[in-house]
Amino acid sequence: MTLPTAPFNLQRPPLTHCNNCGAKLQSCIPPGDGHERMVCPACGTIHYENPKLIVGCIPIWEGKILLCKRAIEPRYGYWTLPAGFMENGETTADGAARETLEEAGAEVKNLTPYTVIDVPYVHQVHFFYRAELVSLDFASGEESLDVRLFSEDEIPWSELAFFTVIETLKHFVADRKAGQFEFRQMQIRNKPVP
Amino acid sequence: MTLPTAPFNLQRPPLTHCNNCGAKLQSCIPPGDGHERMVCPACGTIHYENPKLIVGCIPIWEGKILLCKRAIEPRYGYWTLPAGFMENGETTADGAARETLEEAGAEVKNLTPYTVIDVPYVHQVHFFYRAELVSLDFASGEESLDVRLFSEDEIPWSELAFFTVIETLKHFVADRKAGQFEFRQMQIRNKPVP
Repeated sequence: MTLPTAPFNLQRPPLTHCNNCGAKLQSCIPPGDGHERMVCPACGTIHYENPKLIVGCIPIWEGKILLCKRAIEPRYGYWTLPAGFMENGETTADGAARETLEEAGAEVKNLTPYTVIDVPYVHQVHFFYRAELVSLDFASGEESLDVRLFSEDEIPWSELAFFTVIETLKHFVADRKAGQFEFRQMQIRNKPVP
Repeated sequence: MTLPTAPFNLQRPPLTHCNNCGAKLQSCIPPGDGHERMVCPACGTIHYENPKLIVGCIPIWEGKILLCKRAIEPRYGYWTLPAGFMENGETTADGAARETLEEAGAEVKNLTPYTVIDVPYVHQVHFFYRAELVSLDFASGEESLDVRLFSEDEIPWSELAFFTVIETLKHFVADRKAGQFEFRQMQIRNKPVP
């Protein structure tokens, strides 16, 4: 394994070259397809681009909620639930638990599906689980400046990183007050950040 | 828009070339990342590969279920619920309705989330909605040999295309008998087809 000599590029640039043969791509609608795709004129490979799943947790300890202060863009310095891109080969719950371990150094158990939120303008679907913290053993990962437990009236509403986190926490607080948690599916159709 | 001269390649070959500059990729773990990625040594682009969402419907008309007989591989000739890859820019419900229109020529309304099924060995998550057919106006699309309404005791269990369809229909039949539909999240961890 060799590290590349060029600096890493974390942006996802538009597709311009074929990832099978390296030739320059063209845009067209393949036969039997209703969508314009980037297609390789040399080897015929069709490059499909599809939405990505973000998976995360609401980790709970004695009624308190674990939040992470972001050490990365977007929304550096804002608070979030531990969450991130689901990886190939894992389940949504595996991914939510892995992200909680990576960002908050925390183990979770008893994951229960809670919110699925469509965010079509960024081609994402966010999936949050309710979960129990296994212990008070947690610590900031590389992507977090701080990790803390918040009681309900301490939640930093104006400093939350994303609408999907705000909506998930709003419903969590309301459902807990009502004494019953209900699975919810929602859409966020406007601005990406609060 | 020009069609490429090479035949279309519907397979998804492994990533070998950078889709930003066309250079040959190398495999490495980028700093701060826990996963091996295909990275471009020339321009530094990291090529993330993530699971895809399959979205679909259980379209219902007077208690009967609409199924499509597949005109494409995999599972040519087997019956399935209308479903397919979610596209960029749409919500999960948009996608489920679009696939139902494309595969079965059918309009649906009142979509309610029903099953979310992890299929980690093929890097997919399948999301099915319960839905009502708007009318009896339906017909095979390009990807279907036949489209038909099935009463519960007509469901062709041994000719269903995918485990996620079997599990979704099993729960649907059981929930209807019990008089209450419940959102369910599951995992299928073994063979891709029945």
